[in-house]
Amino acid sequence: MSKGEQTRREIIDHAFSLAAEIGLEGVSLAVLAGNAGLSKSGLFAHFKSKEALQLAVVEEARERFTAIVIRPALREPRGEPRLRALFARFMLWRASQKPPGCIFQSLSQEYDDRPGPVRSRLVEIQREWLDAVRRVVQAGVEQGDLRADLDPGLFAFEFQGVLMAHQYLGKLLDDPDAPALAEAAFESLLARSRSHAARRH
Amino acid sequence: MSKGEQTRREIIDHAFSLAAEIGLEGVSLAVLAGNAGLSKSGLFAHFKSKEALQLAVVEEARERFTAIVIRPALREPRGEPRLRALFARFMLWRASQKPPGCIFQSLSQEYDDRPGPVRSRLVEIQREWLDAVRRVVQAGVEQGDLRADLDPGLFAFEFQGVLMAHQYLGKLLDDPDAPALAEAAFESLLARSRSHAARRH
Repeated sequence: MSKGEQTRREIIDHAFSLAAEIGLEGVSLAVLAGNAGLSKSGLFAHFKSKEALQLAVVEEARERFTAIVIRPALREPRGEPRLRALFARFMLWRASQKPPGCIFQSLSQEYDDRPGPVRSRLVEIQREWLDAVRRVVQAGVEQGDLRADLDPGLFAFEFQGVLMAHQYLGKLLDDPDAPALAEAAFESLLARSRSHAARRH
Repeated sequence: MSKGEQTRREIIDHAFSLAAEIGLEGVSLAVLAGNAGLSKSGLFAHFKSKEALQLAVVEEARERFTAIVIRPALREPRGEPRLRALFARFMLWRASQKPPGCIFQSLSQEYDDRPGPVRSRLVEIQREWLDAVRRVVQAGVEQGDLRADLDPGLFAFEFQGVLMAHQYLGKLLDDPDAPALAEAAFESLLARSRSHAARRH
């Protein structure tokens, strides 16, 4: 890694941590210069604007999410094992963040009423995520693990609901039952999605 | 209403609208003075601090939510009709806001990492809400509409997930299927919660 690349990486790491704590709108070149001990002109050499920096943070979040959740899940066998991996890896992703939580869930609220390039990119990434869930479900249907009449869109909706309710109960309400409830809700979703053939095993 | 009460009401209405648009942290006495054409000293006569104003907005949100969702639902017969009313009134609440959406879902994300009196009050109100859902479910179990072995906590978790996924798909992703998916997910939750006796009807 060249010196320039290394500095760019440090800036993005700092900006990502800051965004996870205070939100992405609070991340500016000025704040970051103070925080990371970098000169504002040094920062400007890498990012021409606050928006360019924010977009780089969103890409960084997407890369980390893909590495921690999507790619390992896709290495599991199609059908139920892959769906279980998707859920387990998402839980791991949440728990591994500082502070714990899914940054995309925070950004989703922060930007839902804030039009612009950051929101547009965020929407693309979230559609990509739901598409990935739907494809994993569809593969499970083709595999025979899941019911042939299962609606992958409804499954993805309910799956997303479990993940969001988990963050809400666990992070906001500090409810010690949050992980067990998320687990039970996911098992219930899976149980009602299984094909008759899979249930007999 | 006295002149003083009327001014206080106007301030809170303005602050509520602003919070729904840009978040509650953006609501300050200075911003509001500019926005509402009120003098800063006039505002200070009613609210001693930004925090006092923010807490008043949170109480206002709670009152509106109670009037639009909770009270009308509790007027319905216990059991399935009351649960259906809770869902339908929540949908109405979301749709009636400007911009559409549940302000508590936005505030939940805004304050989940921001300790202080506003977060504490928000957490109390959200626990109150989940308690209300659990009590409506419990009444449905006692009524015989819902399964005797139903876990009201798990029902409330899954119900909250449906409401959150609806806001995410509808508001962030602008997915036209969001209302139909929320409807289908709620019907599925209800169907698997019904007692055998209720299913026979």
